[in-house]
Amino acid sequence: MSVHTFPDSLETGLRMLAAGQWTAEELTNHCLERIHSQNPELNAFLTVSDAYARQRAHAVDTLATSFPEGLGPLAGAPISIKDLIHTSFAPTTYGSQIYRDYRPTANASVVQRLERAHAIIVGKTHLHEFAYGITNENAHYGPARNPVDTKRMTGGSSGGSAASVRASLALASIGTDTGGSIRIPASLTGIVGYKPTHGLVPVDGVLPLASTLDHVGPLTRTVRDAALLTDVLALTHGTGSSLLGALDEIAEGPLRIGIPSRLVERFATDPVANHFAQLVSFLEESHLVNWKSELRFDEDEIALHQGNIQGAEAFSVHRTWLQEHGHLYGEDVFERLQTSSKISAQDYIYSLAFRQAFQREIDGWFDEIDVILLPTTPVFAPILGTESVVVRGEASHIRPLMTRFTNPWNLSGMPAISIPGGIVDGLPFGLQLVGRFGKDARLLQIAARVEQALTDWNETTGGRR
Amino acid sequence: MSVHTFPDSLETGLRMLAAGQWTAEELTNHCLERIHSQNPELNAFLTVSDAYARQRAHAVDTLATSFPEGLGPLAGAPISIKDLIHTSFAPTTYGSQIYRDYRPTANASVVQRLERAHAIIVGKTHLHEFAYGITNENAHYGPARNPVDTKRMTGGSSGGSAASVRASLALASIGTDTGGSIRIPASLTGIVGYKPTHGLVPVDGVLPLASTLDHVGPLTRTVRDAALLTDVLALTHGTGSSLLGALDEIAEGPLRIGIPSRLVERFATDPVANHFAQLVSFLEESHLVNWKSELRFDEDEIALHQGNIQGAEAFSVHRTWLQEHGHLYGEDVFERLQTSSKISAQDYIYSLAFRQAFQREIDGWFDEIDVILLPTTPVFAPILGTESVVVRGEASHIRPLMTRFTNPWNLSGMPAISIPGGIVDGLPFGLQLVGRFGKDARLLQIAARVEQALTDWNETTGGRR
Repeated sequence: MSVHTFPDSLETGLRMLAAGQWTAEELTNHCLERIHSQNPELNAFLTVSDAYARQRAHAVDTLATSFPEGLGPLAGAPISIKDLIHTSFAPTTYGSQIYRDYRPTANASVVQRLERAHAIIVGKTHLHEFAYGITNENAHYGPARNPVDTKRMTGGSSGGSAASVRASLALASIGTDTGGSIRIPASLTGIVGYKPTHGLVPVDGVLPLASTLDHVGPLTRTVRDAALLTDVLALTHGTGSSLLGALDEIAEGPLRIGIPSRLVERFATDPVANHFAQLVSFLEESHLVNWKSELRFDEDEIALHQGNIQGAEAFSVHRTWLQEHGHLYGEDVFERLQTSSKISAQDYIYSLAFRQAFQREIDGWFDEIDVILLPTTPVFAPILGTESVVVRGEASHIRPLMTRFTNPWNLSGMPAISIPGGIVDGLPFGLQLVGRFGKDARLLQIAARVEQALTDWNETTGGRR
Repeated sequence: MSVHTFPDSLETGLRMLAAGQWTAEELTNHCLERIHSQNPELNAFLTVSDAYARQRAHAVDTLATSFPEGLGPLAGAPISIKDLIHTSFAPTTYGSQIYRDYRPTANASVVQRLERAHAIIVGKTHLHEFAYGITNENAHYGPARNPVDTKRMTGGSSGGSAASVRASLALASIGTDTGGSIRIPASLTGIVGYKPTHGLVPVDGVLPLASTLDHVGPLTRTVRDAALLTDVLALTHGTGSSLLGALDEIAEGPLRIGIPSRLVERFATDPVANHFAQLVSFLEESHLVNWKSELRFDEDEIALHQGNIQGAEAFSVHRTWLQEHGHLYGEDVFERLQTSSKISAQDYIYSLAFRQAFQREIDGWFDEIDVILLPTTPVFAPILGTESVVVRGEASHIRPLMTRFTNPWNLSGMPAISIPGGIVDGLPFGLQLVGRFGKDARLLQIAARVEQALTDWNETTGGRR
């Protein structure tokens, strides 16, 4: 067993593997041991694919010796994937009781692409049942726990993915995001979560929650890792469209940012709002930002139409299963689906039309701004069991509240990323950056610059405000 | 050793490998044995990479056992590459005396992509010195010989590549084409040669002949093989831009073809012109073609400007080497370069401008036609040593004559493919199809339909007219 330190990012891990500081087998075994020791507490994984992972890692080491030019861009890197994504080598439960022993016959496209890149998939991560919720308190498999503070939620629905990365059980993870399900747990656990432009990463072989809003994307330690992993998922690695390649280009000049101030003021708790304001001031003082404009939209209309589309499409997926196995659903998801069954076709169609108008409106904003900035979540990681949070003196139910800052960008399909933005009273703050539709490279260039600036800021302030 | 038959195409080979009918090591060893037995006569290879190939094939077999999902799209397929393309694992001579022992430090991009796809590169193939000629009679390494009739030329400058595929020494090959150097040898040896749109396949790590006109592309047995190999070279395999993927779509309806009749009438020998006319009649009679138009351009102007660009750019590559090692050049290439040194800057610039106008003109033709059809070469494979050919009662020097039908499409940068179009007096006829700039998928769809139709025709006529 190697005595080298565990890599602090996917890129570092790949560099150490290439330099022979770890073999793929050593690094995989190390992750598997960490998983087996920590998972009883964290509940990050629903399935650990020990034998599969060890065998693949051994094959990668053999290839490294005999045909090194044949190694893929993720060769030997232990990666976890959300258990909504089909794997033929491990059960795919969807976080549901019904599918506890379900074994798909084929791998999802994204799994095929990870394998072709020679990533080592170490297991399937915990999720909110059917990805339909944001607390990752699962009636069948218990809650996932936040490695920052195990009394607290990871957030969801890709909570196990976030916990696995934050606790260094894997170098990165793949999640899904329909209303914030990658970005929210990234924010609450203090890592990077990236939802690429709608359609960039294929969703086939991933159980839909609501296909109009569904995205597959990475949870990582750094923006560069998110770019690399998305290049593999989108088949842009090494091409002229490479996102990682774009990060090697120098993006200069100050940024013009847009802030949906009214949205933030209405839903963020005071500590979140204050920290966000200080962070924006810092970016202005350090001359990274030289122009700030306020973006306004009707946040209740957004929530309504997002809810109609998500609900109607989710119900259509579950319709038959509900009839046959309704009693096997967790109470919260069952109720959510029942409510969704009542959405009328005319409301659904109207919401789809609203979505198009909203997409056009936001796209127009980007003629005048480079990026939208807002907190990823209105609150810091709540204690497990929390059902409502007081914001501006009023109690809000946690689920609709938690997605207020993320779901507008599912409705618009635009790329959005959450990056660590400091620590407040020991809890991570996630900063969300939103880019123009299809301009993922530009968004990641900006995110990498802000990530660097915030690292300096955290070092100055000791990572705490 | 397996007793299975040698695959008749790259696709068949991959299917047999996947089915376990050959292991990669068996198929590689089989090709290496064939090379060592036949190369003394054919002179198709300048270097055979035995040890490298065997080791990689073994690694591919190991991967197939332990991590089959990690196998690339060409896993285990023996491929040859033209010795103009840089390899760090084998010498790269450029067919020159000066570089007899040259060993590049890095692989060309296309080699990296072949290796990442787990192709097994069995060796480096014979070429006209510095790719500057079309007979593949090489002053330093002797002539490559046509497997159809070893008294005859392969054509060039990718002659060794063509011979290696035709003689089943490899399942496919990679060549380069500046004035016809992939299509001409494909035509003379009876295989498929494809020059993709200029810029689709990267040329870095390939010695330039004339970069404005240079292309890298495949020599194969079938149009589908050409599509698959180009997908690997262009990083479009498995993406929405996949050329092979396009061939799975049904392309229906009759074709509108354009024929540069005056060009063909002026330069084709009678047997070539007659066979081409019969072939076009067959396509019309079988209702594959329902509209035929005559395309006219000034063929002498094309030859002049193509010659200016090729000569000026080639000389600039060789300028220093000529000063230091002029005596080490073969006589024909030396003379060609000396003549090129006298091209004036104003003529070069005028020729570049003409090229742009010509590109626009041809692009306009494609509003009214689907594809351009013409013979690939004005003559069938000549006897080695032939210097001139009589066409319409007049003796023509073989080099300028041989590129008359191919080099207009280097000047235009448009995709062009030569496919087998029957046998005349025992010698292969190559049919050339030219598509719109950037519309490679459409060209290959048409080429695959014509390929199928001609197979039926050859079966009817016993492959001979």
